[in-house]
Amino acid sequence: MLYLVGLGLADETDITVRGLEVVKKAERVYLEAYTSILLVDKAKLEAFYGRPVIEADRELVETGSDDILANADKVDVAFLVVGDPFGATTHTDLVLRARELGIESKVIPNASIMSGIGCTGLQLYNFGQTVSMVFFTETWKPSSYYDRVKENVQLGLHTLVLLDIKVKEQSLENMARGRLIYEPPRYMSVAQCAGQMLETEEERKEGVWGPDSLAVGAARVGAADQKLVAGTLQELSQVDMGPPLHSLVLLGRRTHDLEKDYIRQFAVNAETFDASWKNGKNGSS
Amino acid sequence: MLYLVGLGLADETDITVRGLEVVKKAERVYLEAYTSILLVDKAKLEAFYGRPVIEADRELVETGSDDILANADKVDVAFLVVGDPFGATTHTDLVLRARELGIESKVIPNASIMSGIGCTGLQLYNFGQTVSMVFFTETWKPSSYYDRVKENVQLGLHTLVLLDIKVKEQSLENMARGRLIYEPPRYMSVAQCAGQMLETEEERKEGVWGPDSLAVGAARVGAADQKLVAGTLQELSQVDMGPPLHSLVLLGRRTHDLEKDYIRQFAVNAETFDASWKNGKNGSS
Repeated sequence: MLYLVGLGLADETDITVRGLEVVKKAERVYLEAYTSILLVDKAKLEAFYGRPVIEADRELVETGSDDILANADKVDVAFLVVGDPFGATTHTDLVLRARELGIESKVIPNASIMSGIGCTGLQLYNFGQTVSMVFFTETWKPSSYYDRVKENVQLGLHTLVLLDIKVKEQSLENMARGRLIYEPPRYMSVAQCAGQMLETEEERKEGVWGPDSLAVGAARVGAADQKLVAGTLQELSQVDMGPPLHSLVLLGRRTHDLEKDYIRQFAVNAETFDASWKNGKNGSS
Repeated sequence: MLYLVGLGLADETDITVRGLEVVKKAERVYLEAYTSILLVDKAKLEAFYGRPVIEADRELVETGSDDILANADKVDVAFLVVGDPFGATTHTDLVLRARELGIESKVIPNASIMSGIGCTGLQLYNFGQTVSMVFFTETWKPSSYYDRVKENVQLGLHTLVLLDIKVKEQSLENMARGRLIYEPPRYMSVAQCAGQMLETEEERKEGVWGPDSLAVGAARVGAADQKLVAGTLQELSQVDMGPPLHSLVLLGRRTHDLEKDYIRQFAVNAETFDASWKNGKNGSS
């Protein structure tokens, strides 16, 4: 049996009781280590489980999945995913591959950022489609996300923006020379995301948002040091929210007063917050 | 401290390890018992926690929250919520009330149906706003949800439809006579939901969906006997998916081939599924 086990969002104790039972009994335990991270390292997980954990990078999952699935028709294999196995990144391809090999799969759900973002007090009912923000470079600043956020903004809905992470990436030079040297991991911050959004609006100029549009930054959702900040995109582009992972929500026009009261608790500046709110700067510039 | 603890979706073992530690140590343990249910009863939870659990109905939470919060500035109180505390139903009002009383709150996230629905293999990125479906009566068939689904359909997005539950409801007669006699609990099925959707389309006639629009029914997400079915709304209006809880997803036009391949695995009828797919009946009639 292949078990896809959600680990939740913060640390080793966020696994469910059922998930932990599976991990303790499985013959092999893999950790999907390229689309998200827990806030603790592998050694801590291994100590907690009392089991060795094999890190699975993108290559192993996408092209070496038969190694992961080897023998899984006879023994239990646990594939651990930060968040929920079918959350922000779905692992349906692994399940389909297992099925082709005659291997049954079971999923142990857990908190995902897609629902965990409810900790902001914003109603999940009022969210439109979710988008991803990648790291801009000097020459590559993709703005296709802008069109999808625009659709949400026109309907008055909130948008959850998931922020890029880069783990086990090679520099172009190392790649060209075939050297397996990896760059240090990078995690996009709320400030970088807000800055890039302002850059895109500068370029596209359709007024989907502006420097005084209201948004919420969330860092380390579900952890003891979770941090939430509400403010204008201009303010958020300056904010330091500490270590990863970060996410951002652009507020929609339909924001309810109850939602507003909740997020105002953690406004960078209550005065600018109220001013932007009064000017209808929640969701459109 | 007030702890809002997510219980996840299926049974007593879906609580996280961290959540269980909190419950075992709290002075009082409440279970929010009116917006959702676990698939096990209170006695089973109590046996698992080794603690008594107080059922909190809507009245207690909405008007008697000071009883729940009594003394919580000095002792720990755990408030258990099926799914995630800030998922489909947010308990921000309780957190704000605690704050007014000088009581700190902490949230222990867990799986919510809002992300758990990813088990269908449909990408959470491709969902628009979520809607709720209430039980229609002879004289009350609210169709405001239709307008919101229409917005999703026009964008080509999936729609998650959450289905009504009625617990501790009084009949009009008993209410009029002031008799505290409650009706047996009722949980809407996928078949009822699909039937009501067809009824609304009959009435509104805007062609947002039709009998051959493709949808996915999900029952008991996360449980050992989880059941998924894909089919046309007409087919789903006839399907028996067993005990609660159920949810339904109306497919959007943007459905990716990988998503299609996944849900086709559990099609009621692969032939009608393929025919509807070919005719572009995913998301619009």
